[in-house]
Amino acid sequence: MESLRAEAREAPESGIVEVMTYGWGRPGLIPLWAGEGDLPTPEFIRDAASRSLADGETFYTSQRGIPELREALADYHTRLYGRPFQPERFFVTGSGMQAIQIAVDSVAGAGDEVLVPSPAWPNIVAALGVSGARPVELPMSLGNDGWVLDLEKLKAAITPKTRAIFVNSPSNPTGWVAGREVLAEILDLARKEGLWIISDEVYSRFYFGDAPRAPSFYDVAEDDDRILYVNTFSKNWAMTGWRVGWISAAPELGQVIENLIQYSTSGVAVFMQRAAVAALNDGEAFVAEQVARARSGRDLICSALERTGRTRFAWPAGAFYLFFAVDGEPDTSKLGLRLVDEANIGLAPGTAFGAGGEGYMRLCFARGADGLQTATQRLVTWLQTSCA
Amino acid sequence: MESLRAEAREAPESGIVEVMTYGWGRPGLIPLWAGEGDLPTPEFIRDAASRSLADGETFYTSQRGIPELREALADYHTRLYGRPFQPERFFVTGSGMQAIQIAVDSVAGAGDEVLVPSPAWPNIVAALGVSGARPVELPMSLGNDGWVLDLEKLKAAITPKTRAIFVNSPSNPTGWVAGREVLAEILDLARKEGLWIISDEVYSRFYFGDAPRAPSFYDVAEDDDRILYVNTFSKNWAMTGWRVGWISAAPELGQVIENLIQYSTSGVAVFMQRAAVAALNDGEAFVAEQVARARSGRDLICSALERTGRTRFAWPAGAFYLFFAVDGEPDTSKLGLRLVDEANIGLAPGTAFGAGGEGYMRLCFARGADGLQTATQRLVTWLQTSCA
Repeated sequence: MESLRAEAREAPESGIVEVMTYGWGRPGLIPLWAGEGDLPTPEFIRDAASRSLADGETFYTSQRGIPELREALADYHTRLYGRPFQPERFFVTGSGMQAIQIAVDSVAGAGDEVLVPSPAWPNIVAALGVSGARPVELPMSLGNDGWVLDLEKLKAAITPKTRAIFVNSPSNPTGWVAGREVLAEILDLARKEGLWIISDEVYSRFYFGDAPRAPSFYDVAEDDDRILYVNTFSKNWAMTGWRVGWISAAPELGQVIENLIQYSTSGVAVFMQRAAVAALNDGEAFVAEQVARARSGRDLICSALERTGRTRFAWPAGAFYLFFAVDGEPDTSKLGLRLVDEANIGLAPGTAFGAGGEGYMRLCFARGADGLQTATQRLVTWLQTSCA
Repeated sequence: MESLRAEAREAPESGIVEVMTYGWGRPGLIPLWAGEGDLPTPEFIRDAASRSLADGETFYTSQRGIPELREALADYHTRLYGRPFQPERFFVTGSGMQAIQIAVDSVAGAGDEVLVPSPAWPNIVAALGVSGARPVELPMSLGNDGWVLDLEKLKAAITPKTRAIFVNSPSNPTGWVAGREVLAEILDLARKEGLWIISDEVYSRFYFGDAPRAPSFYDVAEDDDRILYVNTFSKNWAMTGWRVGWISAAPELGQVIENLIQYSTSGVAVFMQRAAVAALNDGEAFVAEQVARARSGRDLICSALERTGRTRFAWPAGAFYLFFAVDGEPDTSKLGLRLVDEANIGLAPGTAFGAGGEGYMRLCFARGADGLQTATQRLVTWLQTSCA
């Protein structure tokens, strides 16, 4: 073991996995710890993959993605952002995670620093560590108006080694959504300092404001700004298990991104890509259904917890997680295990999400009302009866 | 572009892709440039994936692979190597390429060196470059008894920065197969020097000796030796497009490998893994058919080229490539393009395979007799009529 590379040895076990392992297989446990809903992928998407398999589409394919999928991605973005996108800026990856890995490998390595507002999805910081780059976490704080990113603190954290800022809005785990002005300010800072932005807008459709998507760097940036957008089919179309994502970037970066795909997994199966095309072209009704479910889930759990008077949180403006603190329970790693034992529900401890996450729990509300109502009732009862 | 990380910017475009791009879409061109046969994945394997899709197996799964697949891998190895293997040493990856990436990331990074006997599959050296490690190529030479790895040269190349030796036997592109004694000597050297071995035995079933597989490090090593075996479903079961592979390693490395999977693609789709189980458990007849086809292909092309008197090569002992030089044609990058124009066949230039590959062409003979006979005839005619 000691002969392994230090960065590999030191890559942390996911703090979410720890409680999942603890609670695995408990009868009746309601799992709200992962970033995954309870619906399988819609049938029309699965069928598209099966048809392609039946047609024998099992050979190597283009590293950047099949033309049909890059076209469908361009059309999808054109519809969603109200301005034209070209297929040449889309690169199909083997998961949103791989999109992050490739974005990181594109801009940072040993000796470099990347700024990450936190709490953040643990895999971001971990992927930076594996790459050899140093993640610099910038803890956000929960004030009366919700979670706040301190732009002065962001600016002050920039050093000559800083190469990029990683922005995840809507945020997993806090539900924070950066407004258009905040995005413009971050972009302005990145432009002035010559930094890259890696923009993780995976949850953009899960937005509880009055629009079909959250504000985006696409609203404020030029096509040739130094932004690598990372995204996935996992959440919008309930395709978590598939491992298909995409990068959107200036087409000039195409050869570099293609090479990094080539030397990591060498492309994505054609039959997976056919399913992704179906999701983009025919999946809007399903996305709407999922977002409506998430909104109901959010309202249910937030209202119920508010009434207990024992929790502290901001109503999430996006994504599908509630990130909340429990009065008198600062050690949420232990709390996660206790809630498995004492309430038969599975939540993820905030410590897994890095600096600023201590004292919080993450609950995924991308679920049908039945399971979520039971889970909420269990949590409320526990809050009302457990001693601080 | 200049603001990208140097290792990303400098990752080379595959030298195989260059000629493929040149010849793409030429009417009637016979493509023998890629490491891929002409058969789609067998139907029973495709059906296993479609059944799983129909069953709704579209959720996140274990990072190490589903238990059924790790079990099937253990059984497969037990049958093939004639001694017991435990499921705990197998880790499912999103392609053989990813198995290499994870093996590399496990043992080497910025400032480290890895020895790579060459000519070698270009992605090996490129993946090392992306990781920040320095690949040190050790050119093998073609003598009267075939390709030879000079162990003294290997030993002399070790420096305090050396972390691993990458061994690919049977070799893509040369068809070299390391005998048991050579493997034992490499292992001995690695043990003495405290080095890791990354053993790429992807072509072990494509062996033209009198056995169902090539000699392996499994024949000479202990279970806890510092060896990371990388492998893929691509070749044996005609699953190139699927992107499923595996790592075999001491179970003690499990958490590190799991973490590196987590932070690169976060696992492989369950429905892909169901197909892989079918391949392992019910695919032996298909493997035998493929190996027999490759053997016929080898005999056909080698005999025909020998008769021209204009080529120089060793009959490959394994894998499914012929790596040959043409008298009077030292510039094989140009030769690749000329053969597209003048013979309507697609071969890969040896320069793509690094040091020692100059002056050679790689031809994939994993094809049915019809196409291969035509291709051979075209190549022979070209050799007989073109001027040196």
